[in-house]
Amino acid sequence: MNDEHALVERLRARFATDDPAVRVGIGDDAAVVRFSGDAVLTVDVSVEDVHFRRAFAPLDVIAERAFHAAASDIAAMAARPTCALISLVLPEGFAEDELDALLRGLARASSALGTPIVGGNTSRGPSIAISTTVMGTATAPLLRSGARVGDRLYVTGATGDRALGLEVLLRDATATIAPELREAASAFANAWRTPRARIAEGLALSGIATSAIDLSDGLAKDLHRVVEASGVRARVFADALPFGPSFDASAHALGLDATTIALEGGEAYELLFTMPADATLPFAAIAIGEIVAGAGVVVVEGGVERVIGPRGFDHLRSTSGSKPVQSSHLADLPTSKRRKGCRD
Amino acid sequence: MNDEHALVERLRARFATDDPAVRVGIGDDAAVVRFSGDAVLTVDVSVEDVHFRRAFAPLDVIAERAFHAAASDIAAMAARPTCALISLVLPEGFAEDELDALLRGLARASSALGTPIVGGNTSRGPSIAISTTVMGTATAPLLRSGARVGDRLYVTGATGDRALGLEVLLRDATATIAPELREAASAFANAWRTPRARIAEGLALSGIATSAIDLSDGLAKDLHRVVEASGVRARVFADALPFGPSFDASAHALGLDATTIALEGGEAYELLFTMPADATLPFAAIAIGEIVAGAGVVVVEGGVERVIGPRGFDHLRSTSGSKPVQSSHLADLPTSKRRKGCRD
Repeated sequence: MNDEHALVERLRARFATDDPAVRVGIGDDAAVVRFSGDAVLTVDVSVEDVHFRRAFAPLDVIAERAFHAAASDIAAMAARPTCALISLVLPEGFAEDELDALLRGLARASSALGTPIVGGNTSRGPSIAISTTVMGTATAPLLRSGARVGDRLYVTGATGDRALGLEVLLRDATATIAPELREAASAFANAWRTPRARIAEGLALSGIATSAIDLSDGLAKDLHRVVEASGVRARVFADALPFGPSFDASAHALGLDATTIALEGGEAYELLFTMPADATLPFAAIAIGEIVAGAGVVVVEGGVERVIGPRGFDHLRSTSGSKPVQSSHLADLPTSKRRKGCRD
Repeated sequence: MNDEHALVERLRARFATDDPAVRVGIGDDAAVVRFSGDAVLTVDVSVEDVHFRRAFAPLDVIAERAFHAAASDIAAMAARPTCALISLVLPEGFAEDELDALLRGLARASSALGTPIVGGNTSRGPSIAISTTVMGTATAPLLRSGARVGDRLYVTGATGDRALGLEVLLRDATATIAPELREAASAFANAWRTPRARIAEGLALSGIATSAIDLSDGLAKDLHRVVEASGVRARVFADALPFGPSFDASAHALGLDATTIALEGGEAYELLFTMPADATLPFAAIAIGEIVAGAGVVVVEGGVERVIGPRGFDHLRSTSGSKPVQSSHLADLPTSKRRKGCRD
């Protein structure tokens, strides 16, 4: 990696595309992409020792994960991703095969999502940071603000599996957890490693759903965003939260509460959406609640309503919080060995 | 900065826009911008202790600089910037007033360039990284590949002033340089702090110039990119390189060669462009050479032609190089005090 020119050539070869909309790809000052309509734009960053640790997954999987996490925002807008730009910060001494792995993972996600990588940028820096910009197109962008009283509340998949998987990875728990839970714990860890942007689901919701958001910061917090933007209240049925006995048992074995993780665990990268009660679901989704008049979020459990705050992942949160799932955010944990002793 | 929600509100207020093309700005999963034509897309990152040190400029100036550096790529495509996304990585303990300064600088650049910031992302990380995605629109994107034999070669401004300014800052030379050079040295340092994307010039070149590139990695290296992409040779007249006696004297005082800096110094953020000899310059630019048949770049000095390689700034270059201007790249220097002792 001693030559920027060679690197650009490598990126160009790795991310080659025959998409006719891409008029100029990697290699000029900027990319040129033919486009018409509403451009849907998002950027997301994945930082080493904040969003991931190298021990948690091979670098190709880390990169693939970062791309899907960024594209998940496009899915939540009921948009189709059209192209992406990647800005890579890489530490000194980053090896050729490590770079290969990163590019391979990005190429895999790009290919799976039909989203050519048309430009990028590399820089040296203190640790790995993968910043992914995704542009998409939407005929009717789906916002957070459209939830209406009477709507049903759905998720496209498990809300806590990936957060539990992160707990497993943080504690290296597949080695220490009870043998009968090891397989389940591994599966949760693997779920954390492999989120998939719900593009098809998002597109299928266009014109049907009234609001959507991608679950990145936890159901509680993201749902608060929807009800605030929409001026409504949400009732979540605790019994409807999608998790099974192995989730319950694994959480318990880690000293965590399953419902709390399902409500507050981050990085689910599923869609949370609302739909009129009489509309037909365009795919199998999980009904978890309803929209009513008022404000805030309540969880209904055993007939009792409990108001819950917007807890959950917060990438810039102070370290004062101490709830188990909140503290699972990497940035709130002691820095990894690599950086030990580097604090000011 | 203890609450992401408050931060988003702050970004929303700070970057509010009345641009009618912006249908959804900061605050949803993604931005929605009405767009039609050729989307010109670029991303650029500015990393602490790689691209800047905090001692070199106030944070608002650092942020403003990062935005203009990114937009400079849009200028080089003869495109008009339409919107931007900002991804901020901020270290733990980053203060409120520091964040204020960053946002103020970004807002200033956004406003000066008429380019609303429609989305973004914040994350904690080991040091400041400002990743700026800019989308633009072009009727006839200007590429690197259009230079033709017989064309004249121009730059929009000084090619070495900012690189010399960086040298001044790296050596803290305004304090140590001869008194009669202090004012000049300060001016070069200030030039480094305040690049301005040459948007108007880029737009004026549309349909007239045959090729363009923004000078970020040094004239020699960037010109090599143009001649390679175009399949031609460039002749640069050393006497035509735009620098005066104070540049010469300041470079000399720092033990550097003025012509070398003008040829190889990075971060000029001027446009280098080619135009047919019979075309009329749409603004005052500096003719520095011509395009001839062949390959590579030659510098003509005192009637002697000297072939020069693609030297200059390389953001991922190994540390083996030892030429003065090459070594001015921050990443090649000893790490700053903040990170001393943190290398593996």
